[in-house]
Amino acid sequence: MALSFSLEHTDADSKARAGKITTAHGEISTPIFMPVGTAGSVKAVTQQQLYQEVKAQIILGNTYHLYLRPGIEILNKAGGLHGFMHWDKPILTDSGGYQVFSLAQSRKIKEEGVLFQSHIDGSRHLFSPEKVMDIQRNIGADIIMAFDECPPGQSEYNYAKNSLMLTQRWLDRCINHLNSTEPLYGYEQNLFPIVQGNQFHDLRKMSCEYVASKQAPGNAIGGLSVGEPEAVMYEITALCCEHLPADKPRYLMGVGTPWNILECISLGVDMFDCVMPTRNGRNGMLFTTNGVINIKNKKWADDFTPIDEGLPNEISHYYTKAYLRHLFVAGELLGLTIASLQNLCFYLWLVSEARKEIIKGTFTSWKNAMTEQLKQRL
Amino acid sequence: MALSFSLEHTDADSKARAGKITTAHGEISTPIFMPVGTAGSVKAVTQQQLYQEVKAQIILGNTYHLYLRPGIEILNKAGGLHGFMHWDKPILTDSGGYQVFSLAQSRKIKEEGVLFQSHIDGSRHLFSPEKVMDIQRNIGADIIMAFDECPPGQSEYNYAKNSLMLTQRWLDRCINHLNSTEPLYGYEQNLFPIVQGNQFHDLRKMSCEYVASKQAPGNAIGGLSVGEPEAVMYEITALCCEHLPADKPRYLMGVGTPWNILECISLGVDMFDCVMPTRNGRNGMLFTTNGVINIKNKKWADDFTPIDEGLPNEISHYYTKAYLRHLFVAGELLGLTIASLQNLCFYLWLVSEARKEIIKGTFTSWKNAMTEQLKQRL
Ligand SMILES: [Zn+2]
Ligand SMILES: [Zn+2]
Repeated sequence: MALSFSLEHTDADSKARAGKITTAHGEISTPIFMPVGTAGSVKAVTQQQLYQEVKAQIILGNTYHLYLRPGIEILNKAGGLHGFMHWDKPILTDSGGYQVFSLAQSRKIKEEGVLFQSHIDGSRHLFSPEKVMDIQRNIGADIIMAFDECPPGQSEYNYAKNSLMLTQRWLDRCINHLNSTEPLYGYEQNLFPIVQGNQFHDLRKMSCEYVASKQAPGNAIGGLSVGEPEAVMYEITALCCEHLPADKPRYLMGVGTPWNILECISLGVDMFDCVMPTRNGRNGMLFTTNGVINIKNKKWADDFTPIDEGLPNEISHYYTKAYLRHLFVAGELLGLTIASLQNLCFYLWLVSEARKEIIKGTFTSWKNAMTEQLKQRL
Repeated sequence: MALSFSLEHTDADSKARAGKITTAHGEISTPIFMPVGTAGSVKAVTQQQLYQEVKAQIILGNTYHLYLRPGIEILNKAGGLHGFMHWDKPILTDSGGYQVFSLAQSRKIKEEGVLFQSHIDGSRHLFSPEKVMDIQRNIGADIIMAFDECPPGQSEYNYAKNSLMLTQRWLDRCINHLNSTEPLYGYEQNLFPIVQGNQFHDLRKMSCEYVASKQAPGNAIGGLSVGEPEAVMYEITALCCEHLPADKPRYLMGVGTPWNILECISLGVDMFDCVMPTRNGRNGMLFTTNGVINIKNKKWADDFTPIDEGLPNEISHYYTKAYLRHLFVAGELLGLTIASLQNLCFYLWLVSEARKEIIKGTFTSWKNAMTEQLKQRL
């Protein structure tokens, strides 16, 4: 079964949409946030907690990390990533492009693909569009991403244009190779192309049109949240949403803060992923329904109120700010788990509230009030 | 309500007993293993997992660690450790003696107590019997331990004897001070004295008789599992069990491996604690119903069988050895959580099986077969 998308409601005052994505591993209500499970684990969180506490509907895996560890052979023997990590709901894998350009050492970009050295042991590898499709066949995610070049955020126009042309040629190779191979585990995998073009409007528009012409089951916007001003991110996101098909889900890669997500929902984005809830959580930064908390701060030492009374999940009510602060101060691993859970629960709650508000027709005023509230430093 | 103990069954072929301890925070079926929650957290495990997965009936807190962090004032404001960490079942705290002698810097033993420097910031503190009772009043555990000197395992007879005399004088001061103070949170706290005396039979016997004369609600055996041969540990444990009251629970402190626990149950011990399941778990050593596993070993890389099919809890069935190995190799925090849970679930399962076998009258043969099985290196 190929991925299908049904639009349930489109907001009158914004471009926000509520929809449903159906995959071989179940349905996803949009807008949705996807927790990042880098190397087959959403850091510090069990799969049970992802199901029951976070209520994650889909998670993300990183092709680059999974390819290096545990490796394709193990994943294949396990029946893919679903079997390996025992996650029965949908999975999306990125193409490894971003990590090859941000993590790997001494990379060399050629027409054929990218030569790079593993950040773990320095071993040499080639990622080409064909290779990355084969790897993603073995990982077996429901949604897989095209292999793209990720040019630096500050690239010159000519570099950005040449990079985009390469990404487009690679997209064709991804599609051809995928069409010439079969899924390995008996269910369909769905390729999403990625729009690039840095902050250049004409390149972004060209990229959107090229991507749209492929009539993929969904489309992604890449190359944002890489250091550009928020206003630029919103402007480019708006432009891309305008030029991407309305009847396919739109996935904005790697974005972002809670208020980034609300704003980009209003621009027409349906899917998000970001390491922020887990990474910032492990650093003691909590996102709550009342605003942002640095839980290591002395002011929480004797605050015996729950971490976040505004959330429906158990963890946020069960533990106090004073206790969580103590865990961080004492270097207890449990602190990392509780903070990660709080932030993931918050992100999933936020998109589900956004969805309700879209359906009720009250999204924009809710979003504006909520943005003010969530940005507060407590 | 003071702690009460009822003996339900005594084994015909050994000294093993099945009983029930009743505390203000609920009942404990013995023999029991108590997970160690050093600084208000059983490392890498949530309280929800302790309740639902591990089925812990009582946990242990360390007075030394809790006194240094979060400190007595915070614990008092939180209504004690139960409130602070939100653990509604029984808690036992040690007296800090062991940590003062093993962790703290430049300690000085005087009649009054022990002067020491914090291992965290070098700050100077005095632990006296009175001070330690006050601290444990503030922590509010259901079972609290007398303040004792913990002499090195290899002490000469004279040192051991003088140390024991000091421990006995300190015991009297603990009892007097406790009797002159009230519990802070409205429920009774129960002081267990600790038998010391190193490997010297006459000192151990003298200590048991002194301790027994106090008619405490329970009694502990300290100073074992500190490097002595297993045979000595069993010999001294047997001797202490013989000379301690049969109608009170016997707690063997800091022991040990699964087979140590089975053997000491057969000698008449009712309560155990040890950091081994969590600490060894974090190092990749798993205790399973089939034997011991070093999960980092290459041989598990493609073993897609569950971690331990012999256990009733979910975690041990849900994740495979290959997945857990991958988490350790990739340095994923989830590996620490799963391994800790496996080991804690195993220890709790082991004592509950021992209890069933005692009640059935088949303990000794079961213990002998089980010991062989559990010691195997897989
Ligand atoms: Zn399943
Ligand atoms: Zn409760």
